[in-house]
Amino acid sequence: MEYELRSARFLASDIRKRVVQNGDTVVDGTLGNGHDTLELAELVGPAGRVIGMDIQPEAVKRTMARLTEAGVADRCSLHVMGHEHMKEIVPSGIRYCCLNLGWLPGGDKSVTTHWETTRVALESALELLAPMGVLTVCVYPGHEAGAKELMEIQAFFASLRPQAFNCLRQSFLNAGPGSPECYVVQKQ
Amino acid sequence: MEYELRSARFLASDIRKRVVQNGDTVVDGTLGNGHDTLELAELVGPAGRVIGMDIQPEAVKRTMARLTEAGVADRCSLHVMGHEHMKEIVPSGIRYCCLNLGWLPGGDKSVTTHWETTRVALESALELLAPMGVLTVCVYPGHEAGAKELMEIQAFFASLRPQAFNCLRQSFLNAGPGSPECYVVQKQ
Repeated sequence: MEYELRSARFLASDIRKRVVQNGDTVVDGTLGNGHDTLELAELVGPAGRVIGMDIQPEAVKRTMARLTEAGVADRCSLHVMGHEHMKEIVPSGIRYCCLNLGWLPGGDKSVTTHWETTRVALESALELLAPMGVLTVCVYPGHEAGAKELMEIQAFFASLRPQAFNCLRQSFLNAGPGSPECYVVQKQ
Repeated sequence: MEYELRSARFLASDIRKRVVQNGDTVVDGTLGNGHDTLELAELVGPAGRVIGMDIQPEAVKRTMARLTEAGVADRCSLHVMGHEHMKEIVPSGIRYCCLNLGWLPGGDKSVTTHWETTRVALESALELLAPMGVLTVCVYPGHEAGAKELMEIQAFFASLRPQAFNCLRQSFLNAGPGSPECYVVQKQ
């Protein structure tokens, strides 16, 4: 069966597989271990472009290793920088941007995303999207600052003009407190 | 572009198009105007079966007219009955069930779904689903009893064992208060 309801991460993956086309330019605003980046590199194909960034050098290193091993590094540009600076390196008209908020899996747990920079990254991503372009944001409210981040994200998306953006919250109801959520925004 | 984020109703439609296979037996627990029923009849094909019900005779009449016009009435059984009696007529092992809570569009607004019967319908649908089978529930909290219904639905889904069911809430964040939501439950 094609449809399987699993986790926030899989919801985001499922959506980008439907949104991203061959030749697209897309953004991974939080490289982490590079799983999403690799998926994006495969989706955009040899004619496409993945622009990725992470504030942690270790994340960029891991991701570059993964992309190189898969033979798709030449269609990706990776940057050691916070996603709040996205607009400095990303051209307008991207089809898709993904963000994973929280800490680097297996990394330094004192380094998490923060609302002040997250908000700038969200605003930038929405501005850079092409019409019908999509932003997915996976939120992991399990960490200390997570519950607050969740409320701020929701207030931010709720404040967007419905004529400009359609904002969907996807939350699992019986997965326990602090379980990851996936937000989807499509530009109108 | 294949992916378009629109409304709760479209989310449910999108999911059933991915879940329902040729030859399946599926249930429409709230016929309404029969739009969903027709879609289901097309998805199950000539070898499949759609079992539909609505407490309002007018809804059954409208739906039957729509199915007959489309030439697919022979694969559908429609019943004037409340969905809380679903188990009396639906065999075990259905692939999909859809429910739309609220009143009949264009019908008598004093006739809405109520939690006591909705809960029985939900329990029945979950019991009747085949493994990996899916239930979608669209909730329209715009009516008087709607906000309460929304809270009860959420508490109900939150109480389900995660080993048995995966429950997703899909809500639009910037569509205004009382905007429809789509719940998705997949049996494990």
